[in-house]
Amino acid sequence: MPSSKEIHLKSRPAGLPVQENFELIETEIAAPVEGEVLVKNLYMSVDPYMRGRMNEAWPTGAVLMGGALGVVVESNHADFAVGDHVNNGLGWREYFLSKGHDLGKVDASLAPLSAYLGVMGMPGLTAYGGLLVTGELKDGETVFVSAASGAVGSVVGQIARIKGCTVIGSAGSDDKVTQLVEEFGFNHAFNYKTADPLTELRKGAPKGIDVYFENVGGLQLEAALTHMRPYGRIPICGMIAHYNDDGTATPGPRNLTETIYKFITLKGFVVSAFGDQQPQFLKDMSGWIKSGEMKYHETIVDGIEQAPDAFIGLFSGSNNGKMLVKLADA
Amino acid sequence: MPSSKEIHLKSRPAGLPVQENFELIETEIAAPVEGEVLVKNLYMSVDPYMRGRMNEAWPTGAVLMGGALGVVVESNHADFAVGDHVNNGLGWREYFLSKGHDLGKVDASLAPLSAYLGVMGMPGLTAYGGLLVTGELKDGETVFVSAASGAVGSVVGQIARIKGCTVIGSAGSDDKVTQLVEEFGFNHAFNYKTADPLTELRKGAPKGIDVYFENVGGLQLEAALTHMRPYGRIPICGMIAHYNDDGTATPGPRNLTETIYKFITLKGFVVSAFGDQQPQFLKDMSGWIKSGEMKYHETIVDGIEQAPDAFIGLFSGSNNGKMLVKLADA
Repeated sequence: MPSSKEIHLKSRPAGLPVQENFELIETEIAAPVEGEVLVKNLYMSVDPYMRGRMNEAWPTGAVLMGGALGVVVESNHADFAVGDHVNNGLGWREYFLSKGHDLGKVDASLAPLSAYLGVMGMPGLTAYGGLLVTGELKDGETVFVSAASGAVGSVVGQIARIKGCTVIGSAGSDDKVTQLVEEFGFNHAFNYKTADPLTELRKGAPKGIDVYFENVGGLQLEAALTHMRPYGRIPICGMIAHYNDDGTATPGPRNLTETIYKFITLKGFVVSAFGDQQPQFLKDMSGWIKSGEMKYHETIVDGIEQAPDAFIGLFSGSNNGKMLVKLADA
Repeated sequence: MPSSKEIHLKSRPAGLPVQENFELIETEIAAPVEGEVLVKNLYMSVDPYMRGRMNEAWPTGAVLMGGALGVVVESNHADFAVGDHVNNGLGWREYFLSKGHDLGKVDASLAPLSAYLGVMGMPGLTAYGGLLVTGELKDGETVFVSAASGAVGSVVGQIARIKGCTVIGSAGSDDKVTQLVEEFGFNHAFNYKTADPLTELRKGAPKGIDVYFENVGGLQLEAALTHMRPYGRIPICGMIAHYNDDGTATPGPRNLTETIYKFITLKGFVVSAFGDQQPQFLKDMSGWIKSGEMKYHETIVDGIEQAPDAFIGLFSGSNNGKMLVKLADA
């Protein structure tokens, strides 16, 4: 019957989230009864999409949710043994009881455990499905991805590179821009805070772009629309520039009329659309990791007490690659 | 060798076009040589899309282009006889010579001649293809169309009604709103100048809309995005609210993030995509006209001298249905 620390949503953020929106609570977990397992979370994920859920979907005064990777520490369930590693949607807490239906076993021999919250997990599948299914990428096309050093963006760019595409990426610091080119193999990258997106797209893709993988919105979407080739596709994964909008929301792109004569498609999606792709995704991704074609970084902070800060940091780009919180040693 | 009046683009409009952007020129047309026909245009079309072409695509100091319906008055071409009626892309002029490749014969027994510039022509096929192909309309869905009393919008709404859909439309005067409901059989209509689009959509479609046929942009697009059902489609035909934007373009929708969790698709298109649908379109449309299921209006002004005013009037909604200029008696 361990004591478990967990983070509650104390109040709804107005604009950018702050420490005061969160509260650390300590609670006692009962022993698992017949048909239950006790899971100790080892890593939890903080992700930009959570900001939207905090507006309405998630109740205040209750523990937050999110992706986590844990280990079974007690089992009264026939399908789970002590030591099994399990993906789950019950982050922001150290321990929990489960009847098993909300757990997915992961194979620790395929990739490091923490990768199941990143390239091998939700962000990886988001990149894979968004680019190949929603974006209908064809080998050899030209791809632009914003927030390209993030957990999703860095995978998007590398999959495109592996598929023989020309890849342009944007990020928010010169160090990240250097990393995109030198480590992830992007053909061209730029710092969106200091460079003009349209000028950079013209430089990196003189003939235009076929797919813009949208993570950001704002001026980068406008530049992409202007520089899109006919029949271009814009899978909309996120628009982090708009997530903390208050009443005076950031205006959308002024040039949506570009879509008309260029037959451009914009299409929103979330990862839940890609259940059918999951087996092929795990096979492809673990292969690319092992061959060294797919590189990834993690920013890992230590202890559940740091989770609110880690989440808030997403909106100022304090992470390099997937932002994780380590809750316990494996 | 008739004398032919034609309208030239004298200067490029800045924002809303004005009379001074146009010039009436009189020119002599030679007699047709072997392999040529002389065509007398009976009707010419003015359409919102022409505004965009005047920014760059069309040269100044030259005659304008556009849809027209003419009759062969002299023929030295084996495929054309005097009296043949022909669709052509050489509007804004009274007479022209052709080698035939830019002419399409039309069947005057299927529908009145002027209809070939409206419901049986480019605007009709735009509505038909945009709704059924790009918009992937399914019988019984809920459809919203803006600029619903226009040449395209009124056909969109009636096709949707014929397909058993619930149809909501917007227009710019109370008279047009009344016409939408009483004559075209829309389920709900509103005046976008005096009513709030989102409130009206909630009233006319309590369960949300599946297809928004986009002709306008601006606040109506924002309202549609907010009130869209999951997997909704937005075929983008035009955005007339933005056509006369100068340097300070009207901002786009502030709520494109609505696309993400609702898997919404926005897709630009132009009528040239629907060549394959043309035969079925002519069959369906002439049938609907004859059965009385498809109604249409024309605003016809008389004489090529009036063409610039007719075109300018499109942007203040001075037309009811298709705006045409009559150049000669049939």
